[in-house]
Amino acid sequence: MPVAYTPTSADKFSFGIWTVGWAAQDVFGAATRALMPADRAVRKLAELGAYGVNFHDNDVFAFDESDREERLGAFRKALAETGLRVTTATTNLFSHPIFKDGGFTSNDRDVRRFAIAKVMRNLDLAAELGARTYVCWGGREGAESGASKDVRAALDRYKEAFDILGSYVLEQGYELRFAIEPKPNEPRGDILLPTIGHALAFIERLEHPEIVGLNPEVGHEEMAGLNFAHGIGQALWHGKLFHIDLNGQHGPRFDQDLRFGAGNVRGAFWTVDALEAGGYDGPIHFDFKPPRTEDDDGVWVSAKACMTNYLILREKVRAFRADPEVVEALAQARVEELAVPTLAAGEDWRTLRDVIIDVDAVAARGMAFERLDQLALEHLYGVR
Amino acid sequence: MPVAYTPTSADKFSFGIWTVGWAAQDVFGAATRALMPADRAVRKLAELGAYGVNFHDNDVFAFDESDREERLGAFRKALAETGLRVTTATTNLFSHPIFKDGGFTSNDRDVRRFAIAKVMRNLDLAAELGARTYVCWGGREGAESGASKDVRAALDRYKEAFDILGSYVLEQGYELRFAIEPKPNEPRGDILLPTIGHALAFIERLEHPEIVGLNPEVGHEEMAGLNFAHGIGQALWHGKLFHIDLNGQHGPRFDQDLRFGAGNVRGAFWTVDALEAGGYDGPIHFDFKPPRTEDDDGVWVSAKACMTNYLILREKVRAFRADPEVVEALAQARVEELAVPTLAAGEDWRTLRDVIIDVDAVAARGMAFERLDQLALEHLYGVR
Amino acid sequence: MPVAYTPTSADKFSFGIWTVGWAAQDVFGAATRALMPADRAVRKLAELGAYGVNFHDNDVFAFDESDREERLGAFRKALAETGLRVTTATTNLFSHPIFKDGGFTSNDRDVRRFAIAKVMRNLDLAAELGARTYVCWGGREGAESGASKDVRAALDRYKEAFDILGSYVLEQGYELRFAIEPKPNEPRGDILLPTIGHALAFIERLEHPEIVGLNPEVGHEEMAGLNFAHGIGQALWHGKLFHIDLNGQHGPRFDQDLRFGAGNVRGAFWTVDALEAGGYDGPIHFDFKPPRTEDDDGVWVSAKACMTNYLILREKVRAFRADPEVVEALAQARVEELAVPTLAAGEDWRTLRDVIIDVDAVAARGMAFERLDQLALEHLYGVR
Amino acid sequence: MPVAYTPTSADKFSFGIWTVGWAAQDVFGAATRALMPADRAVRKLAELGAYGVNFHDNDVFAFDESDREERLGAFRKALAETGLRVTTATTNLFSHPIFKDGGFTSNDRDVRRFAIAKVMRNLDLAAELGARTYVCWGGREGAESGASKDVRAALDRYKEAFDILGSYVLEQGYELRFAIEPKPNEPRGDILLPTIGHALAFIERLEHPEIVGLNPEVGHEEMAGLNFAHGIGQALWHGKLFHIDLNGQHGPRFDQDLRFGAGNVRGAFWTVDALEAGGYDGPIHFDFKPPRTEDDDGVWVSAKACMTNYLILREKVRAFRADPEVVEALAQARVEELAVPTLAAGEDWRTLRDVIIDVDAVAARGMAFERLDQLALEHLYGVR
Repeated sequence: MPVAYTPTSADKFSFGIWTVGWAAQDVFGAATRALMPADRAVRKLAELGAYGVNFHDNDVFAFDESDREERLGAFRKALAETGLRVTTATTNLFSHPIFKDGGFTSNDRDVRRFAIAKVMRNLDLAAELGARTYVCWGGREGAESGASKDVRAALDRYKEAFDILGSYVLEQGYELRFAIEPKPNEPRGDILLPTIGHALAFIERLEHPEIVGLNPEVGHEEMAGLNFAHGIGQALWHGKLFHIDLNGQHGPRFDQDLRFGAGNVRGAFWTVDALEAGGYDGPIHFDFKPPRTEDDDGVWVSAKACMTNYLILREKVRAFRADPEVVEALAQARVEELAVPTLAAGEDWRTLRDVIIDVDAVAARGMAFERLDQLALEHLYGVR
Repeated sequence: MPVAYTPTSADKFSFGIWTVGWAAQDVFGAATRALMPADRAVRKLAELGAYGVNFHDNDVFAFDESDREERLGAFRKALAETGLRVTTATTNLFSHPIFKDGGFTSNDRDVRRFAIAKVMRNLDLAAELGARTYVCWGGREGAESGASKDVRAALDRYKEAFDILGSYVLEQGYELRFAIEPKPNEPRGDILLPTIGHALAFIERLEHPEIVGLNPEVGHEEMAGLNFAHGIGQALWHGKLFHIDLNGQHGPRFDQDLRFGAGNVRGAFWTVDALEAGGYDGPIHFDFKPPRTEDDDGVWVSAKACMTNYLILREKVRAFRADPEVVEALAQARVEELAVPTLAAGEDWRTLRDVIIDVDAVAARGMAFERLDQLALEHLYGVR
Repeated sequence: MPVAYTPTSADKFSFGIWTVGWAAQDVFGAATRALMPADRAVRKLAELGAYGVNFHDNDVFAFDESDREERLGAFRKALAETGLRVTTATTNLFSHPIFKDGGFTSNDRDVRRFAIAKVMRNLDLAAELGARTYVCWGGREGAESGASKDVRAALDRYKEAFDILGSYVLEQGYELRFAIEPKPNEPRGDILLPTIGHALAFIERLEHPEIVGLNPEVGHEEMAGLNFAHGIGQALWHGKLFHIDLNGQHGPRFDQDLRFGAGNVRGAFWTVDALEAGGYDGPIHFDFKPPRTEDDDGVWVSAKACMTNYLILREKVRAFRADPEVVEALAQARVEELAVPTLAAGEDWRTLRDVIIDVDAVAARGMAFERLDQLALEHLYGVR
Repeated sequence: MPVAYTPTSADKFSFGIWTVGWAAQDVFGAATRALMPADRAVRKLAELGAYGVNFHDNDVFAFDESDREERLGAFRKALAETGLRVTTATTNLFSHPIFKDGGFTSNDRDVRRFAIAKVMRNLDLAAELGARTYVCWGGREGAESGASKDVRAALDRYKEAFDILGSYVLEQGYELRFAIEPKPNEPRGDILLPTIGHALAFIERLEHPEIVGLNPEVGHEEMAGLNFAHGIGQALWHGKLFHIDLNGQHGPRFDQDLRFGAGNVRGAFWTVDALEAGGYDGPIHFDFKPPRTEDDDGVWVSAKACMTNYLILREKVRAFRADPEVVEALAQARVEELAVPTLAAGEDWRTLRDVIIDVDAVAARGMAFERLDQLALEHLYGVR
């Protein structure tokens, strides 16, 4: 591997502790690897060149918190010794049986109260550890059947939870922003706020929308057949791309959480392009699961490859954008003409009301998109 | 068929002229039916018990408008003689080659100007014919390849178009509201504003968001594997369910536009339930395509069945909600507990901060959702 | 519930021990229910009216077989006391870490040898317990990445395994037939023999094709967007529908294993119709997972509902087929004309070579499929 | 573009006349390009370096054959002058309204007779023009609704058609083999023989199975979420990969027919690898549609890119297979161990019956698939 693909802290690569730490248990089978203590994950990720980590409370210590101080001590020590940042944190509101119908939107009010309290406790820890982003994946907020969940009431409760937690963060003076992670389904039959769009719309109805944004995940949008680069384009347009989860997926099926690059490769190229073009400057975060076939060595090969692939793709998208032939092809495809307002200065609807164009001539203009796309593909292939 | 399933104008059933009028031409084959003049569609729909119609400009007259007065005359006459309302109208910005890269977001500024003007002209007609809702389906607003469309610039232009048209409608004093119809793909590889959520979020950034809402279509959300009843639940929560397009689909595949009821039957049951529960009082509009196998008789069988199926399902959801066993099962599933705020009056985050619950006891509570869902299914089957 | 929907042994309903026994652990969360001993499952299923059960070896005893005699004793006792049949058996070649790359097609030859031996041991038990069908679900036979599995070599090994096991069964004189259960993906990224079709074709290449058939599962085909009734139609056409797994699914997404009837309801109607019409007389077997939200009561509600729904649908499809209006509509749709050979007696290609028909007249004939399908839907709704 | 990516006739690239000739009409819009005469397509494809063409009868002349001799004359002349081969031919049994319910399996017996005759007439032409493969895509053989098609009767008729046509070809002494092209849906709701597997199984029941094989298409399998390289692997295993249709698709959605390489890029890499490894030596055939946005120039850019991309990928898969690090990684992943029979020479089931292995040791072995897959990805990226 050329030096160019060696990650440095300037690349701001981060990983969830639960990614490399996943013991590889699934619905159909037992764990194939040992659970990894958070401090070991930190030390190994640092060796590989990562910049930061993200963690659920229960990635570090047990649900009953009996080992909290001990495990947190080891975690803090590893962070201190390696210099890795905690860029991001989150709460596990999905593994314990108590969350079987969700956390913030469980029909059971006792669960909702407990869930919000669990988040507050971990917000304290997140703030103390220096995280700036707090991810909320509501994986159990949803339903398998129609009558069991009153969607409008659920959105009321979902909003209530974010309003309470927003007040908490603001009143504590924490420099934390929330990032909602949408997902269409799995583990629930249908999950609330299933896509980037639904979450963006929801945020507009919160009491503190300014501190709530998105953490979109490649695979989650692709499970709905949606174009991820388009999705983060819209999130950027709304000023809400607070964080990102990169991984790989093969379209509508179970959540594969493949390493970044393994999955929809062209989608990955355009995702990196969208991040670069959109000026995203948060952590480049990987949320993947090393396949169940891998042993500990395979875990680290897989983690390292996430970063390598990002660096390769970043180099390619920069070369693509700098290529004079591409610049010319973009002009031919009139891509920049879309940045020109449809109304000229001083115009309003009156100007357009009776606009006359030569319909046949305009209709006959080819868009030349195939040429442009082929140039991109040849950059991806590395033959340009 | 019992009398109970005979539509009346109080049911507010409406159809697009293009539905029954579809000549059944597809990508792989020629038309199997003759094009139907709009006035014939109106007369036949009136006979079947419909209340209103929706039309694209070019459902009534040709793109070049050479037959505009003649065709509009026949259309108006049919409306007057039958009493059918024009509840809704829309613009065809997708069939003519000029719109091959979209209307409002074409890279070609000439096309964008022409598209907005075309909408304005048809808004005048819509207002004159008494329509209250103006649907905007941006079926060609999208891309097949990554570099060809700058998504953020496209959203700027999309917003610009709605801002111009919003001003136009307001300044003309038209009592019209816009309803955006999202779709994830087809005919474009990826369409902008692909789901209910994306469109809801977009509306928040418009200059006149109060006159822009949604026209969600069953099949379009189901093509992304999304739960349609959940989607319209969220649209209702935002106060944005301005209109609805009912039809049938079999999950992620090409846009099938089956008659309402033929497709995801359980989804249809919950859709009607969501409309009833959410107090939706707009037209019950069908946007379907009688299959290419059908002759003219088949077209009307199919159209009539849309209404029949809605009436059957409406009767069933009302019976479901009124069934004492269901009421009891809803209580057992604690569905109404979700309507109770998580914080009691006077509480704030401080109250929750250190809430103590009996985790094991709460976690052990079953949700009893299967019982509830089976009751719903038995109502659907008509065995209760 | 009317008496008509009370299952009797004549209905031949059977369940996998692992269905009601599932502890509800998934990729994202811990078990919400206790593991159920096989003997308890047997007793409860008998109470509900089931006829038989299916089991994996490790549904009854542990992988290391340390509790084999004890657990088998309790299982046998429950079977004897309740009269439930073991209609079917199968081997767990997917839960233990050793099978992480498959059983019959693992790259690791030691694993393949162990897997075949494990099946042989359980075939002995299956035969002893009176099972007539032995299901083979190769859930781990597959790959996440391209080079890791040589598909043609894997099919050679897959065939080798079935050839060895076929010889074993024949030489032992067991009255057992194998039933391959296809699945497209999950838990592997892509599974070998992904659909009914692939498995049917594979069987043709075996040494003992006569004792190998299919066990298609509703959800597995629907995960690939395929029509399940069509699939079992083709399996019946090949004489290979040896067994069936009924459940529910919502299209391409994770494997939901919903109770039969909850999912694609119209698909369920046509599935029952295809089984009735095709003369299938094996067990009506349910392979579902009671959702993780349910406690023990919910498990039994869900199990019972599978049988109820089958009985309801069976009644409906019989009424549909007996309805004189349907008979007439089938004639109008020329459905039976498809059973008439295209060549008349004595004809061959020479007769057709220059056949002359009135193309326009034939093309103009409508198929009247919408009428027929609406009749079916009204039977499903119970309004006829 | 380096010289290495310039196609020569040794590469055996072929195109359907209907691909570059597509006028770009879809369900939602009119043609954006003029229909292209077959002779023009031949001349332009020859200029680009193609080796052969495939055609439907009605790509060359009209359905009513009124222009048959004239159009065929021009086609023959272009073939003669350019030296392009007709590698393959096929019949259009899907565009004319008469085929609205299918050709070989239409409920209407008159249609079935007409369809078989139409194929026979075009088989004569195919043989005369030197085609060796005759593709059969049954795009209209299917149904939108459950009762309208008796699947078993339809398979009887499907078989009857192939039996008649097989006799015809054999008795005429034509050196033609049939290649069935499976597709799951679109334009019909569900199509018969929906995947590679279903078609492979069907062939086994024909009278002349030896002259019937497959023509799998990338996009058709990917519309069902299936792994195309796995599919052609199984087709090769059965000895039935008679032809191939290469293009691009983005998973389960409408049939996109993107140029080869634009779509699932990793899938394309493994497809080329499977063709190379499997010794496929038929035409490398492209079945794509230049997007509706393109003018005539764009059509040829798109067509040329199909060939370029194949050459790029072929170079990459060869480099991948030759890379010593890959060879070592394949060994580490024990890929070749799968080619070793599970039974050693002289062994049978008795040897395996009580095989003892060290389960824990074997289970602990990692498969090292991630390393191998990352090497492949880096070859795809061109950074190795």
